[in-house]
Amino acid sequence: MFNCIICRYHEIATKGNNRNMFEKCLVDNMRHAVKSIAPECRIKRIRGRVWIEPGNDSGFFDPEILPQICGKLKNVFGLESFSPAVLLPVDMDVIRQTALELAPEVFAASSKECPSFRVRARRSNKRFALTSNQIEIDLVTAIAEKLGENSFTINLKNADITLGCEIRDEFSALYFDVIHGPGGLPVGSNPRVLTLLSGGIDSPVAAWQIMKRGSPTDYITFHSSPYTPPETVDKVRGLAAKLNTFQRKGRLFIVNLAEFQKAVRDNCSERLRTVLYRRAMFRIAEAVARREDCKALVTGEALGQVASQTVANMDTINRAIDMLVLRPLVGADKLETIAIAEKIDTMKQSSVQVPDSCTVFAPSNPATSAPVDLALKEESKIPDYAGILEKIIQDIEIDA
Amino acid sequence: MFNCIICRYHEIATKGNNRNMFEKCLVDNMRHAVKSIAPECRIKRIRGRVWIEPGNDSGFFDPEILPQICGKLKNVFGLESFSPAVLLPVDMDVIRQTALELAPEVFAASSKECPSFRVRARRSNKRFALTSNQIEIDLVTAIAEKLGENSFTINLKNADITLGCEIRDEFSALYFDVIHGPGGLPVGSNPRVLTLLSGGIDSPVAAWQIMKRGSPTDYITFHSSPYTPPETVDKVRGLAAKLNTFQRKGRLFIVNLAEFQKAVRDNCSERLRTVLYRRAMFRIAEAVARREDCKALVTGEALGQVASQTVANMDTINRAIDMLVLRPLVGADKLETIAIAEKIDTMKQSSVQVPDSCTVFAPSNPATSAPVDLALKEESKIPDYAGILEKIIQDIEIDA
Repeated sequence: MFNCIICRYHEIATKGNNRNMFEKCLVDNMRHAVKSIAPECRIKRIRGRVWIEPGNDSGFFDPEILPQICGKLKNVFGLESFSPAVLLPVDMDVIRQTALELAPEVFAASSKECPSFRVRARRSNKRFALTSNQIEIDLVTAIAEKLGENSFTINLKNADITLGCEIRDEFSALYFDVIHGPGGLPVGSNPRVLTLLSGGIDSPVAAWQIMKRGSPTDYITFHSSPYTPPETVDKVRGLAAKLNTFQRKGRLFIVNLAEFQKAVRDNCSERLRTVLYRRAMFRIAEAVARREDCKALVTGEALGQVASQTVANMDTINRAIDMLVLRPLVGADKLETIAIAEKIDTMKQSSVQVPDSCTVFAPSNPATSAPVDLALKEESKIPDYAGILEKIIQDIEIDA
Repeated sequence: MFNCIICRYHEIATKGNNRNMFEKCLVDNMRHAVKSIAPECRIKRIRGRVWIEPGNDSGFFDPEILPQICGKLKNVFGLESFSPAVLLPVDMDVIRQTALELAPEVFAASSKECPSFRVRARRSNKRFALTSNQIEIDLVTAIAEKLGENSFTINLKNADITLGCEIRDEFSALYFDVIHGPGGLPVGSNPRVLTLLSGGIDSPVAAWQIMKRGSPTDYITFHSSPYTPPETVDKVRGLAAKLNTFQRKGRLFIVNLAEFQKAVRDNCSERLRTVLYRRAMFRIAEAVARREDCKALVTGEALGQVASQTVANMDTINRAIDMLVLRPLVGADKLETIAIAEKIDTMKQSSVQVPDSCTVFAPSNPATSAPVDLALKEESKIPDYAGILEKIIQDIEIDA
């Protein structure tokens, strides 16, 4: 039935000089997303829209493959929405005839006996004989005649069923579903970054948010073997795999922080442990990011959520490095973050209880305001601070 | 009718050692918010809830003042929800009688002829003779008898009308409305910050987000008089006033950047102008923040939104200073930010078209990736860079 998918974007449309780069990046990512399911698909850019065509002999999407393609498109950042559609010649008789063929099945599938209905026509071809409004009246009248006057009510604002009709210069299109894409900018339109990924709820959401703004991400995670079990890393591996459904594969850098944590335990003030751990994590992450050409770090930090996320402690941790740190959740409430974690399906994995490296030797009463001078003083008590970090960086494992 | 307002919080309840500080801060802010309308109100903390009592002779809220109090509470961060309620003795006969007195008016006010209804009881007083479930059945039965069986349907999940009933040790309470608060943490539970406030859509939303996480904020804005009109600053004044309804008054620091911009125009590469402006703004803001004891800067930057907000340029701008920069919108789409701007009612003011200082001498084709080395080189071409900034800082005006 459907011989094309109309794909829409929003923010890309506001780009001036670089719009071409954003569109190319989007099409490239769409192609990559559907490659494993329907490699024969053809994806084209046509004036402000992207069109997917089946590219097979029948000229129509296989009804079993189409939902799978739509499933993949739901994860392609930059897409605002998309609609499986029927591509037709620019001929009102053919358009009307096709609408009448499509309508019974769509109305039958509605859960309501008398659903509300509307037609929304859009005419960029101004030579077409009917105006948008006339097209809408024509199609509603024809469908009412076929299905019976009492089979639907009209609701122009918020209908259960909407029939879309586009009239272009070279062709027209009819569609019923408007499926939401994830919005944002195509992954790859901004440089690569490195996300500090713990097993918690926040950091996977932060990684997703930054991918949504166009940056592909690698991941770095910290464990404290033998003080944390192997499950600590397995959990993060699972989260990274889930996040990679939104981009091409990001690598996972796996860091054992235990030697450093022992040195902190043995030499530094107990109340500062978490801040000192976080400063070391930032330094290690910055070193990896520079080596791997990632241009910024990403964290799931939320202002005021825990002791290490007060303004004072975030500043003290931030000053350990020079590199830009992106904190997309810094202004988010926990409930808002959980809602996104549910939406992107990381919540269940994040909720599995496994010890993380931050809790190893963690103080019962952590400092909520550790000035940077104090952190530096405590760090100076650790014999060969730089050497310990260097050794840890040398021993990093990579899941590529 | 109502003799108390039950106020609920969420995230504060997860705080361990510091919960007391958060609760005190919340009550203090609530008191400040209602002071101008109903200074006689008494606000108390009672086991996980905050209660507002009228504190007047009648013992009941004036029906004309109550909506104004609720309006103020809607802007108090930390409040998850609140309900005007009737405080009663712990006596099922009195509770039932009062429910029967309240119900007719509430049902009459419903827009539906036969609304859905439920009772939700909560019993922390375990010596009370009825269980929560029994209380619910008792009240539903009594109300059905009074109003008639066909005056409502029961819907336990999503009712048009919900009657809440709390049974505590010392008193019970009945309420119908659950009004949403803004969530977050009480302003003042985190240290003061300084927001770079332009007249655009993003920066007011960023300021709001960070206030929501507990930090009061001052504002700093940049104009380029005589190249920008007085309206540039007036617009920001209006936005600051609107934002101050969510906190006690934040000050506005008004900076004329024109002398610096002329020096950039006359000495530096045109394509880097915006990045160089932003680096100077950050340096000036950092100097003001240190002087005024603000602990971090806040910006409305969103990754990939405009040329100065690529990862590369954000990094180059960020490296101009040492201080922590909070960018709560860094992972947000423009449509998400606009939705918040509508909610907090800054959108209309932000949409007024007025030139801003960033557009003065702005290049037609700005660099999207200016490395920090290049920025430093261009800055070194400006005779007496530090002196120009120092003069600008001396001339800052303050709206206090």
